[in-house]
Amino acid sequence: MQQVNLGMIGGGTVGSGVFHAWEKNGGLMAARLGVQLVFRKIAVKSFDEPRPYPIARNLMTTDWQEVVNDPEIHIVIELVGGTGIAKTMVLAALAQGKTVVTANKALLSTHGPELFAAAAKSGANLYYEASVCGGIPIIKSLREGFVANQFPAIYGIVNGTCNYILSRMKAEGAEFADVLADAQKLGYAETPPDLDIDGYDAQHKIGILASLAHGFWADHHAIHTEGIREISKVDMQFAEKLGYTIKLLGIAKQISGKKPGVQVSVYPTLIPNAHVLASVNGVFNACFVRGDIVGDTLFYGRGAGKDATASAVLSDVADAALDLKNGGKVRVAPFVACVKGGRIAPMDEIVSRYYVRLCVLDKPGVIAKIAAIFASAKIGISSVFQPESQTGASVALILMIHDAPNAAMRKALAKIAKLPVVKNKPVMIRVENFE
Amino acid sequence: MQQVNLGMIGGGTVGSGVFHAWEKNGGLMAARLGVQLVFRKIAVKSFDEPRPYPIARNLMTTDWQEVVNDPEIHIVIELVGGTGIAKTMVLAALAQGKTVVTANKALLSTHGPELFAAAAKSGANLYYEASVCGGIPIIKSLREGFVANQFPAIYGIVNGTCNYILSRMKAEGAEFADVLADAQKLGYAETPPDLDIDGYDAQHKIGILASLAHGFWADHHAIHTEGIREISKVDMQFAEKLGYTIKLLGIAKQISGKKPGVQVSVYPTLIPNAHVLASVNGVFNACFVRGDIVGDTLFYGRGAGKDATASAVLSDVADAALDLKNGGKVRVAPFVACVKGGRIAPMDEIVSRYYVRLCVLDKPGVIAKIAAIFASAKIGISSVFQPESQTGASVALILMIHDAPNAAMRKALAKIAKLPVVKNKPVMIRVENFE
Repeated sequence: MQQVNLGMIGGGTVGSGVFHAWEKNGGLMAARLGVQLVFRKIAVKSFDEPRPYPIARNLMTTDWQEVVNDPEIHIVIELVGGTGIAKTMVLAALAQGKTVVTANKALLSTHGPELFAAAAKSGANLYYEASVCGGIPIIKSLREGFVANQFPAIYGIVNGTCNYILSRMKAEGAEFADVLADAQKLGYAETPPDLDIDGYDAQHKIGILASLAHGFWADHHAIHTEGIREISKVDMQFAEKLGYTIKLLGIAKQISGKKPGVQVSVYPTLIPNAHVLASVNGVFNACFVRGDIVGDTLFYGRGAGKDATASAVLSDVADAALDLKNGGKVRVAPFVACVKGGRIAPMDEIVSRYYVRLCVLDKPGVIAKIAAIFASAKIGISSVFQPESQTGASVALILMIHDAPNAAMRKALAKIAKLPVVKNKPVMIRVENFE
Repeated sequence: MQQVNLGMIGGGTVGSGVFHAWEKNGGLMAARLGVQLVFRKIAVKSFDEPRPYPIARNLMTTDWQEVVNDPEIHIVIELVGGTGIAKTMVLAALAQGKTVVTANKALLSTHGPELFAAAAKSGANLYYEASVCGGIPIIKSLREGFVANQFPAIYGIVNGTCNYILSRMKAEGAEFADVLADAQKLGYAETPPDLDIDGYDAQHKIGILASLAHGFWADHHAIHTEGIREISKVDMQFAEKLGYTIKLLGIAKQISGKKPGVQVSVYPTLIPNAHVLASVNGVFNACFVRGDIVGDTLFYGRGAGKDATASAVLSDVADAALDLKNGGKVRVAPFVACVKGGRIAPMDEIVSRYYVRLCVLDKPGVIAKIAAIFASAKIGISSVFQPESQTGASVALILMIHDAPNAAMRKALAKIAKLPVVKNKPVMIRVENFE
């Protein structure tokens, strides 16, 4: 049986997960693939760093260049993460003509085109299934399973930390800061948590999915990104009363009309409780993919963690090994820029519905003043909800707003914020009905 | 750009769907794949049969052999269905060394190994993504995305007709026969409906998934199969009261212990309302896949229909075309029998929980008699539920039964059925908690 040799850079949580999964099921993989996968070298930070599964001592080195430069190694797995040294490592491996498998969404999102060019130059390949939605084969499904489709819309719960926090806020009626602190204690959120809770991790992931779906690489600077820091218990509860759940969604949506383009964005969103995404809780991820041929589909699973990630990494290794077995390296190129002139629509052009919460003085004429501002901006109010039995000088006022462009909404809310009767910075959360 | 020529046998609903999807997105597929896909010939029953999308007249022939024998055609798509002439067609195409793409679950399930042997003999390939769960890329996900996994359990809602009927029975409180009749009028059920509602279509599909997951071909004769004819409104309602939904599940589950094997079966099942499969309604399909590395995952989408099926057929065509582009035909073999001595566990060995509904005389001592039979069979009763305010000589009695082997349960129920105080044939539906 043909043998393909693996090298890995990164022997911490995920790296040891990959090694463990290979130890457990490597024989089965060989039987399925007709290729023997053999680990030759694993570069680690230190031999004795704590890891959930042990790695054979004789495979370890602390010098990553030993992995990249070993002429016997065919496939290099990069699990270092980040956009610094990891980039150097990946480029070095590609330059050697080695196929690279990575789980590094930040690197892909930030430097994708440069990496793809480097791979093309040396005839190597670059696989990155594990970079989005952990163990869910969403990249393979988009570019192979759904290759016959255009993608009118993709909605993803792609950050497990945010979903864990929002799920607990809803279930327990708790505030963001309290749940975050607890999540950090439990290891579900990093310290500092910014990359996750400010939406950047989700930005990397939806950017990758949008690029694959729409055939041009989505510049991450153009992805409108909001995190979940400003979601409060009270908005969670009002949303619930109105029949909605708040989720952080990565969205990639075709925009037709006068200015065609693709919406690519990350923001907290009210979604109807009856929608299947509303029941995706805890650290789970899910991607709702609408294809123009296949219709609506959903993929659900663990979005992170050593084992789910290992499953995705090893599926890429298997694809790469099959390529090598069949005498090639690039059956499916890392990225096919098949659409010229693709455009990410600026957020201000995006039309959506909105949930707005104002804190207003409890006196006659307030709603009229607010409604007048919306009316002059040609923005329709679909419902108004003022909870009963509020006491005090100011009360909460909830407005549900019909489809309106972001720019118009932004300007109207700025005017409303200046009304003397409005006592808070208006809270605005977009609403998605998946129509 | 390289060109790959397609022939298709079958130009009805699904065939015209494939042609339409190719007309719409064939250019995009070429850009993505680097291969031009060109239809050369499509064999139809008659030029003028009604079809949802038109097929170019100059491509049509009524002689399928023209497709199979055309030396310019590289890939043959078989959409005739059934195990008769379709088998002859597929074998003829494979014998010519042509790659075959089929949506024919019955043919695969019944004659899989013979077809795989024919493909191997001529060095051809056979793709069948569309045979299970329509547009959902479940076969690709199992054998590529999850190649690093063993599969402790797969649960599938794989028959859209049954799911449509059960969903409406639950939503409307309607009886099976009435919903079936209406479904037939609306085109959601065939006439006769037996293949679907007696579970055979689901049997074919779960057999294919079980085979791919467990590495030996599941003989369809060994798949215990029950349909939904005997599900009544009253059981649907009692299930609801107990917090369950009734779904027809295809199940493929690893059995460990003294007699290891694989449970492969189809039967109506009570599943907890909180489980994600309980909210899969209407004609939608879903597959819940538990991998030993990846954990729990779910795939959801349209399980049938011209467009969803077309999406899957064309994804297979794309894979086949990439193989041809790269100078091979069999990157992934149609089936890898990598497990020797695999065994489908007979139903009588299968342990599960049960819902039992009896119709009993309303007098003292009845429950004691029934409980005594279960006790002597060492079967534990986990709860008893006798609805209040029933009138008449006999009343409904619902029992929830702890884990017990099918054989013991079957024998105990046969004894209970003979009790003079029991007035109906006991209704027994298995319960799945996905533990």
